[in-house]
Amino acid sequence: MQITFLGTSSGVPTRSRNVSAVALRLPQRAEVWLFDCGEGTQHQFLRSDFKTSQIRRIFVTHMHGDHIFGLPGLLASCGLAGNQQQPIDLYGPPQLKDYLQACRRYSQTHSSYPIRVHTTEPGKVYEDDDYIVSCERLKHRIPAHGYRVVEKDRTGHFDVKRAAALGIPPGPVYGQLKRGEVVTLPDGRKIHGADLCGPPIIGRKLVYCTDTVFCENAIKLADQADVLIHEATFAHQDADLAYQRLHSTSTMAAQVALAAQVKQLIMTHFSPRYAPGNPLQLDDLLAEAKAIFPNTLMARDFLTCDVAPAAA
Amino acid sequence: MQITFLGTSSGVPTRSRNVSAVALRLPQRAEVWLFDCGEGTQHQFLRSDFKTSQIRRIFVTHMHGDHIFGLPGLLASCGLAGNQQQPIDLYGPPQLKDYLQACRRYSQTHSSYPIRVHTTEPGKVYEDDDYIVSCERLKHRIPAHGYRVVEKDRTGHFDVKRAAALGIPPGPVYGQLKRGEVVTLPDGRKIHGADLCGPPIIGRKLVYCTDTVFCENAIKLADQADVLIHEATFAHQDADLAYQRLHSTSTMAAQVALAAQVKQLIMTHFSPRYAPGNPLQLDDLLAEAKAIFPNTLMARDFLTCDVAPAAA
Ligand SMILES: [Zn+2]
Ligand SMILES: [Zn+2]
Repeated sequence: MQITFLGTSSGVPTRSRNVSAVALRLPQRAEVWLFDCGEGTQHQFLRSDFKTSQIRRIFVTHMHGDHIFGLPGLLASCGLAGNQQQPIDLYGPPQLKDYLQACRRYSQTHSSYPIRVHTTEPGKVYEDDDYIVSCERLKHRIPAHGYRVVEKDRTGHFDVKRAAALGIPPGPVYGQLKRGEVVTLPDGRKIHGADLCGPPIIGRKLVYCTDTVFCENAIKLADQADVLIHEATFAHQDADLAYQRLHSTSTMAAQVALAAQVKQLIMTHFSPRYAPGNPLQLDDLLAEAKAIFPNTLMARDFLTCDVAPAAA
Repeated sequence: MQITFLGTSSGVPTRSRNVSAVALRLPQRAEVWLFDCGEGTQHQFLRSDFKTSQIRRIFVTHMHGDHIFGLPGLLASCGLAGNQQQPIDLYGPPQLKDYLQACRRYSQTHSSYPIRVHTTEPGKVYEDDDYIVSCERLKHRIPAHGYRVVEKDRTGHFDVKRAAALGIPPGPVYGQLKRGEVVTLPDGRKIHGADLCGPPIIGRKLVYCTDTVFCENAIKLADQADVLIHEATFAHQDADLAYQRLHSTSTMAAQVALAAQVKQLIMTHFSPRYAPGNPLQLDDLLAEAKAIFPNTLMARDFLTCDVAPAAA
């Protein structure tokens, strides 16, 4: 699991930061999942090393323009790219479907591939053999959801050499043993697959919380995450603005990370006000957060981070 | 009058060309008029030397996404910029108003300044003391209008020295004479203002034609223009694609320029297919056009051109 930030500014783009979007690359899949899609996200793809044609799922946190205005163009471009486009599943608030339909209707865009829009409710949003995505309601001016992506735990590495040494003939039996099943061999021996597998591989956990003021649900969603991406629109000194606009300060983001016992916090969604010239700068936001939760990073556009495998 | 191209690619952005937008800067006004507004136009403003807060009017040719998907974000950002934003008047197809309303409603964007949307019909679209904007229906897959901006002719430079030599006392009389009126002085002399003014200053004419296949209306609209901006999505060799998708080839753009007797042609809205690697390149489109109309330029993003004053 590898994340790349495609936009890290709040509200409006700046010369160096686009509005919100995070790409998630999944191992062993030529597939990208996107979280939010502010205007210009397709342009950021052009500047990155992946292609919009790899996008398979898009999770939308809420309907504010800086999180959705890139969707109509990106979905239209995917259809125009010429290469066979896989279906795209979108997840988000109930209005997402109507918004996309309106944009398609007014711009007379005819999609050449399936686009399916799903309404998110707190709880499980998506599941396949390898991943579960769930969400929780956050605390913003309009309904907003944070997302949690959990890689399922897998059985440990199967020890082929030991299986051979035990005289187990290669074949479908190996698959059963790899899955941890108990198998009776032709000679009557009972083999426990678990005995031939290494320690289970614990799945990684990535959590994305934006837009929100400090809230208990963020802590619940972020529980034990390997990486928590949390918005930090404002500095601690501007907490009044954060409460007024229902955004977070760097301190709030760090408090969520601490309370949820995550491994790493990456802050994003910064107000453009902390540009050079302001007495407060982004370095101050980082210092404020680190005082509470030391393993904190500031996102910047195109920052790429591995979500490290958890220790067994 | 000065134009700056903010996007010169057709359909989808490329690494070097954004989708359609042209900014027009008017002399003696801290005001920018925009023609079309593809996704990422507000980002192009950040990279240019003008500000979105200067935008006073936006003329939209048609409802295809690569010409309108930048509007919701740009209009929202104008409101967030913090500085007192002047009203914005938009001109375009009847669906423009509904599209913008839908985007505002779904994204819960509340505008802090007046946004007025006007439906364009062939003929006069806008007029003030200095400019007239008109439009004509072009020939595209959906209704599309080309725009013509005409600076009104002004009376020539008023010769203050000669007025003084004639013993005309300074005062409101000067204003009347400057406007070319006939004035009777207290001493009974009749003075013709025109005699004290230089030759009239002929207004400049700028025409913007996109998206369209070759059509008579484009020639009519472009008549005697100082600068004609005309789409040239395809090379002459790909004329079948142009007819099929109702776009122009470079040759068609040049034929319009020639038939309309314009002074200069600037081609834009190029298909991304003519990228390095294609046997046909943008230089070929330029050569094709120049063979028919020599005074032709290729637009590129951020190209800035003066619309030269016409000779009297
Ligand atoms: Zn928001
Ligand atoms: Zn078009």
